[in-house]
Amino acid sequence: MKKKYNEEGISIKKSENFSEWYTQIIKKADLVDYSKVSGCLVFKPNSFVLWESAKEYFNKKIKKDGVENVYFPMFIPEKLLMKEAEHLEGFSPEVAWVTHTGKTKLSEKLAIRPTSETLMYDSYSKWIRSWKDLPMRYNQWCSVVRWEFKNPIPFLRTREFLWQEGHTVFSTKKEADKEANKILKFYKNLFEELYAIPVLSGKKSEKEKFAGADYSLSVEALLPNGKGIQGATTHHLGQNFSKPFNIKFLDKKGKKQYAWQNSWGFSTRSLGIMLAIHGDDKGLILPPKISQIKAIIIPILFEDSMDKVLNKSKEIQKRIGSSLCKIDSRLDHTPGWKFNHWEMKGIPLRIEIGPKDIEKKQVVVVRRDTSEKILVKEKELPKKFKELLIEIQKNLYEKAKKSLESKIVKTNKFEDLKKSIKNKKIAFIPWCGKIKCEESIKLKTNGAKSLNIPFNQKDLNKKCIGCKNNAKYHAYFGKSY
Amino acid sequence: MKKKYNEEGISIKKSENFSEWYTQIIKKADLVDYSKVSGCLVFKPNSFVLWESAKEYFNKKIKKDGVENVYFPMFIPEKLLMKEAEHLEGFSPEVAWVTHTGKTKLSEKLAIRPTSETLMYDSYSKWIRSWKDLPMRYNQWCSVVRWEFKNPIPFLRTREFLWQEGHTVFSTKKEADKEANKILKFYKNLFEELYAIPVLSGKKSEKEKFAGADYSLSVEALLPNGKGIQGATTHHLGQNFSKPFNIKFLDKKGKKQYAWQNSWGFSTRSLGIMLAIHGDDKGLILPPKISQIKAIIIPILFEDSMDKVLNKSKEIQKRIGSSLCKIDSRLDHTPGWKFNHWEMKGIPLRIEIGPKDIEKKQVVVVRRDTSEKILVKEKELPKKFKELLIEIQKNLYEKAKKSLESKIVKTNKFEDLKKSIKNKKIAFIPWCGKIKCEESIKLKTNGAKSLNIPFNQKDLNKKCIGCKNNAKYHAYFGKSY
Repeated sequence: MKKKYNEEGISIKKSENFSEWYTQIIKKADLVDYSKVSGCLVFKPNSFVLWESAKEYFNKKIKKDGVENVYFPMFIPEKLLMKEAEHLEGFSPEVAWVTHTGKTKLSEKLAIRPTSETLMYDSYSKWIRSWKDLPMRYNQWCSVVRWEFKNPIPFLRTREFLWQEGHTVFSTKKEADKEANKILKFYKNLFEELYAIPVLSGKKSEKEKFAGADYSLSVEALLPNGKGIQGATTHHLGQNFSKPFNIKFLDKKGKKQYAWQNSWGFSTRSLGIMLAIHGDDKGLILPPKISQIKAIIIPILFEDSMDKVLNKSKEIQKRIGSSLCKIDSRLDHTPGWKFNHWEMKGIPLRIEIGPKDIEKKQVVVVRRDTSEKILVKEKELPKKFKELLIEIQKNLYEKAKKSLESKIVKTNKFEDLKKSIKNKKIAFIPWCGKIKCEESIKLKTNGAKSLNIPFNQKDLNKKCIGCKNNAKYHAYFGKSY
Repeated sequence: MKKKYNEEGISIKKSENFSEWYTQIIKKADLVDYSKVSGCLVFKPNSFVLWESAKEYFNKKIKKDGVENVYFPMFIPEKLLMKEAEHLEGFSPEVAWVTHTGKTKLSEKLAIRPTSETLMYDSYSKWIRSWKDLPMRYNQWCSVVRWEFKNPIPFLRTREFLWQEGHTVFSTKKEADKEANKILKFYKNLFEELYAIPVLSGKKSEKEKFAGADYSLSVEALLPNGKGIQGATTHHLGQNFSKPFNIKFLDKKGKKQYAWQNSWGFSTRSLGIMLAIHGDDKGLILPPKISQIKAIIIPILFEDSMDKVLNKSKEIQKRIGSSLCKIDSRLDHTPGWKFNHWEMKGIPLRIEIGPKDIEKKQVVVVRRDTSEKILVKEKELPKKFKELLIEIQKNLYEKAKKSLESKIVKTNKFEDLKKSIKNKKIAFIPWCGKIKCEESIKLKTNGAKSLNIPFNQKDLNKKCIGCKNNAKYHAYFGKSY
C-alpha cells in the first residue's frame, strides 16, 4: 500500500496563526527535536546542514578580511565574569553554574559562557604588549548557554545555541569604528545574499545596546507576526573592557595606552528568521544558496517503464550535478506523497520525469517558491536549472523586501505609532533617543521598543514623537523578540 | 636595532628531555595558552587552523560515506547518564556538574557531556521505528569535558577538548561490524595521509576497551618518550545501549528488534601526537598537507635593492599561490631571526630571495624537515614547489615509520618484554588476552598495558608470555598515555 499524505501536512495557515504554523513546519520538516534537557534542542541533519552553509559563507568572508579562528574554554570563573559590572548584570540571572566535578565541590564556581568577553580579554591582556600585536582579530564558533525561563522556540529562543563571536582589538578608536561598520555590512550581506532576507541596519538605542558597549550596531528583520528581531550585532566596546582587564599596549612613541575593542556575533537564531519569513502553508522554502540539495528528482514510475525512467533520472542527476540533487525512487510512496514531502522540506526545485516526458525529450520542473510548472527540453535543463535557482533566490528576496516595506509606517503622530504597533507593523518615527523617552513609549504602546536607528538620516527638522523635545533622528520602533 | 634570536629558542634537546621539549615548542610556536580555568587551554590561531584542516579532511571523508552532521545539547540530565551502568562508572568521577542557574538550584543536576552516548540514544529511541530508518549515521563536532586531576599537557591531556563523535545505528550486527572497521581505516588514513604518522591498528583488549562496548578498535601511535598513545577509536556497542535505551525497530518481517550500534571518535589530542613526533630541536615540523602556509618567503633586504627584492617576492608569491605562502618583509628583524622564527613554527619550506638571486634568476629553497638548501631557477619554482611538498610529506612519514619499527621488539620471553618496556619500546608478544593476565603483566613490568591486537595474525602456535596458557594472538604492549 502506498502511503497517502495526511498526518504530515500542516494543519494551520501561516496567516492565521504564525506561532503554531512555525512550530509545525519546524517539527514536520524534521529540523530539530526537543531533548531531555529542558529548553535545549537537538539540531537534526536537516537544520545542521543549514548552519554549516552559513558558517562556510561567513568564515570565508572574515578569513579573507584577516580574522583568525580560535577556541577558548567554555568555562568562566566567577570572579572573572564579575570583573565588568554592567556586563555581569546583563547576564548573571541566566548563567548556568558548574559547582561540582565528580563528587568534589569546586573552590570557585564556573560559569558556562553566556558570551566570552571576560575570559578572552583576560588572555588578551597577557598577549598584547605593543602596537605591533595589533590589530588582533579573533573569532570563535561555539555554543553558548543562557538559561532563559520563557518557553523555548526552536532556533529563536533556546537555552543553548550555536554562534560565532568575534573579539577584536585595535590601537585606535577610529580603526575599531571602521571594523564595527564593516562587519555589520558582512552581516547584511549574509542575510540578503545567503538567506534572501532584507534587513534594517542601524545603531541600537542607548536603552537597547549591549551591556558594556559604547554603542551597538545591528541588522533587524521583521517576522511575519509583526515582531522585529535582531539578526546580528556588532558592538564597539570602547575601552570599557580594556580598562578593567588591563589590555594595554606600547604605542609607536613608547607610551602605554588602553586598547579599543569590538565584539560581534550572529547565531542559529538567524536560521529561524529565514525559515519563518520564507515558509508557506506547504512547509519550508529554502533559498537555493543555502540549500545543499537544489532539486529533488521524482521519477514517475510504472511497472513497464520503470528501468527506463530510473535510468533517465540518474542521467539527468549526473548532468546537473550529483551533489546538487537527489532522486526519490522509493516504491512505497506515491509521486503525490513525494511532492508534498519535498515541498515540506523546502527544496527549491522539483524535477518530474515520466515515460511520456522521455518520449518528448523533456522534463517537468516545478518551482517551490511560486509552484510554477515549467516544461523544459532535456538539453536545455542544465542551463535552465542554473537560471531558475538564481531567479528563485532573487524572487524570495524581492518578496520579503516588499513585505517588509509594506509594514513600515513613517509617521510623526503618536496615534499612528500606536495604531501601527497594534496592527503588527514597524513605525519609523522622529525621536530624541533618550532612555526615559523610550521607556515611556514602550509603556504607552503596550511594548514597542526601538529596533535601531538607520545611518543615513534625512528630514531631521522635527520634534520627538514621544517627549516633544527636539528629535535627533528617525528610528524604527516595533514589538520585538 | 634588529632583534636577535635568543630568548625564543628551545633550551633543551628533544632527545634529552621530551616532556620539557614538548612544553617548550607548544608554547614558543604560539599554539596554545593556559586560561584562568585550571586544566583548560586556549587554542590560538596557529593550532586551531590545524584542527580546521583535520576537520575538513575527515568531514569530507565521512560525508561522502553517507554520515550526516548534527548537534546535540552539551547537557545530560543525571538520570540519563546513569542509565547504562558500566558507561557511568567509566565517566562519573570526571563529570562536571551544573547544579544552579542564576540563583536557582536545579531540580536535577546536569552533566556536561563527557561523551554523548546517553543523550543521543535517548533521542534515537524516539526517532527509530522501522528498518527504513536504518542505518542512522550521525556525527557531531563539539567539545567534551572530563575533569581529570593529573597535570594538563597541551593537546594530550586537558579537561575540555575538541573532538568528533560518530553515533551510528544498524539493523544487523554485521553491518555495524563492517562500519566499525571502515571508520578505523578512515582514522588510519587521517593519521598516515594527513598527519604523516604511522599507526598500529587493531582491537583493544577486554581490559582496555571502552566502558559499555562489545569491543573497541583503535589506531595507536608511539610518542618519542616510548609511550603508546591512542590516536582514535571505534567502538562496537552491540546492543548494550539499545536495550537500556529501548532503541527498537520493526524489521522487514514486522518483528521488533533491538538495534546494533557503533560510536567512534578522534580529538585534538591527535594534533599533539603529530607535533610531538615530527618536531625537532628547532621547533615544530608541520606536514605540508596540514599546514595552511606551505612556504614562507624571506626577502633579503638591503637599502639599495629593497624595492626590487620586495617586488620579486610578491611576484613569486603570486606565482606559487598567494594563499599558500606568506612574505615576511618586516624591517625590524634580521633574516637570521626570521629563519629561526619560521622554523619554530614548522612551515615546510623557506624561500630566500636576495638581490644576487634575482640577477641569477634563482631562489634559495630550504626544506624544514632536512634543512637541505636547494637552488631553484625561478621558472622551475612552481613545479619544484609542488614536488618538494610531496617529498616532505613522504619523508616525514617514512622517518616516523622507521622510528616506530625500530622501537617494536617481537619476543616471547618475559625478560625481553621487561627490558623493552624499560628501554621505552613497544613489545609484540604472544598473549592469552585475559584481564587477570594483563593486570599481572602490568604489575611485573612496572606499568605496561596492551595497546592493541592487530587483525592479521601469524605464528599463533605459542604460549602466552604472561600466564603460560595458550596464546590467542600477538599483541602490542607498552607504557601508555
